[in-house]
Amino acid sequence: MLRIDENQIVRLLRGRFGARSPSLIQGIGDDAAVLRLRGAREHLVVTTDMLLEGVDFRRSWIAPPELGHKSLAVNLSDLAAMGARPRFFTVALALPADVSEGWIQDFYGGMSILAKRQGAMLIGGDLSRSSSGIQVTITAIGETSGRRVACRSGGRPGDLLFVTGILGKAAAGLALLRQGRTSGRSAAERLALRSHRAPEPRCDAGLWLVGNRFISCMMDLSDGLSTDLPRLCEASGVGAEIHGAQLPVFAEARRWQCDPVDLALNGGEDFELLFAVPERKAARLEKAYPSKYPPISRIGRLRRERDVVWAPSPDLPLRPLAPRGFDHFRNFS
Amino acid sequence: MLRIDENQIVRLLRGRFGARSPSLIQGIGDDAAVLRLRGAREHLVVTTDMLLEGVDFRRSWIAPPELGHKSLAVNLSDLAAMGARPRFFTVALALPADVSEGWIQDFYGGMSILAKRQGAMLIGGDLSRSSSGIQVTITAIGETSGRRVACRSGGRPGDLLFVTGILGKAAAGLALLRQGRTSGRSAAERLALRSHRAPEPRCDAGLWLVGNRFISCMMDLSDGLSTDLPRLCEASGVGAEIHGAQLPVFAEARRWQCDPVDLALNGGEDFELLFAVPERKAARLEKAYPSKYPPISRIGRLRRERDVVWAPSPDLPLRPLAPRGFDHFRNFS
Repeated sequence: MLRIDENQIVRLLRGRFGARSPSLIQGIGDDAAVLRLRGAREHLVVTTDMLLEGVDFRRSWIAPPELGHKSLAVNLSDLAAMGARPRFFTVALALPADVSEGWIQDFYGGMSILAKRQGAMLIGGDLSRSSSGIQVTITAIGETSGRRVACRSGGRPGDLLFVTGILGKAAAGLALLRQGRTSGRSAAERLALRSHRAPEPRCDAGLWLVGNRFISCMMDLSDGLSTDLPRLCEASGVGAEIHGAQLPVFAEARRWQCDPVDLALNGGEDFELLFAVPERKAARLEKAYPSKYPPISRIGRLRRERDVVWAPSPDLPLRPLAPRGFDHFRNFS
Repeated sequence: MLRIDENQIVRLLRGRFGARSPSLIQGIGDDAAVLRLRGAREHLVVTTDMLLEGVDFRRSWIAPPELGHKSLAVNLSDLAAMGARPRFFTVALALPADVSEGWIQDFYGGMSILAKRQGAMLIGGDLSRSSSGIQVTITAIGETSGRRVACRSGGRPGDLLFVTGILGKAAAGLALLRQGRTSGRSAAERLALRSHRAPEPRCDAGLWLVGNRFISCMMDLSDGLSTDLPRLCEASGVGAEIHGAQLPVFAEARRWQCDPVDLALNGGEDFELLFAVPERKAARLEKAYPSKYPPISRIGRLRRERDVVWAPSPDLPLRPLAPRGFDHFRNFS
């Protein structure tokens, strides 16, 4: 039985493949790789993510256009996290025999709408039959603005922590699906379901934040704040404190028996951006940040002590924030 | 039930995503995409291929280091077919719960040996548990020599057709496995098994052929000559004739009841290069071609008539060459 987690595998790969090269600005272990090509004015940013039926989605919970959208969105979100503009992508698709031609059309239809909106071109891929479920693997390639790029490393003690958007909305949608509600009966339910099924990658915001040199480090929230924040901290060699009262939670989820703070801390697949800003730049950022992008919220700060702690409310003491999000390997038996 | 073949899906995608862009030299439908980046001295070449347990391999027929090697090799072969030098790759790996940490080490071990030999760096990837078999999807990125690149299009009537190496060796290895022989008892058997399990991508030869401007079009042989040659012909708007007596066959396969010519025509996974050369350049190519690369053989020529024909021996008339290789979608039920 596999007793190895994702972080261990990343270390294994770094040991075996960790070559240094002037063309490799950032290799394994960040949201995406950053390449410097001879003569090129921009750096290239490359990321790969897969979605597997039975692991990452159920066919009865997501329509083909949404699955096409989401498969691409999770990859573009990694580009957003580096501050890169989407340019190209490939799709490897394995399909079981019970998938119809109409399904394939709808899948690529949803994908192409997002691709066009974000400026990403499909450049190739692979197709195969699958002896089990649907499997989608996408590799997305983006370009930096000039040669500016954001990494998980670079955060310093004292930097303020921000997130885009609302946290826990996608997990609230997943909770609805688990309760058997596949179509929303209220605006809040529909919003939650849509956040889970068709998340919007924050490419514009990421590009703006990096292009305007506000941030010290950044990542996207795919596995939940309590799991992802320690990764940001480890890469930056810092710890962090989170103020629960400042979290932009999805309060409506209470209506379907969810704890909004729990969802915001531990719910996955929000695909919002988590980033740190030197304190002296924070007020300027808040003033300059374009209102057309999803709003940003201060949620805490980085600190010298290497642990990650949080205070549920201002009157309560800081306590350890245990990672309760999704680790793709911890679930192995 | 799915009644759509790979070529139809490629047409569907071209219709939906077929955007024109100055940065896209070659999009969907060749062995790899070719990108022109602002300021860059070389073009970038990108390809994606997946290997699925139960479809492309059986765990009992291939050792973990060989699977690691082969997963990367099939992608590097696509780069070879464009005349690109391997530079970077990503690996998306889904693993069932019964795979051990040692398996993962061995898999990446085999991959890293080939990667180092070919100059390719692992730059990222994704890891997931799988509820079914092992799934490997690799995206490889290469660079052209200058801005020279080979495509499937570009062949002209009269051009001579060549292949590298021996055809049918990998299929001869697969035949052994199907007969229950997982370890070779003779040098020929071991060679055949090794060709099937750990094919060597022809990157050096491809780069040399394109860099020296000998060829008019090129592709790699992954699904068998009788299936791949029509794809080359369609892209070039030509037909072709093949001379059976000139095929570099793997004669030793007769010892295990295989027809070497049938294997050469219809056996998949040789990952040799198939290319066309203007007749006036052919003799010069044969003289200049480095002996350290796998030998090349003239096997026929392109022709104006759009069909693909072959003559089993010089005294027999030309007859249609029916595609009997592997179509990843024709096998759908």
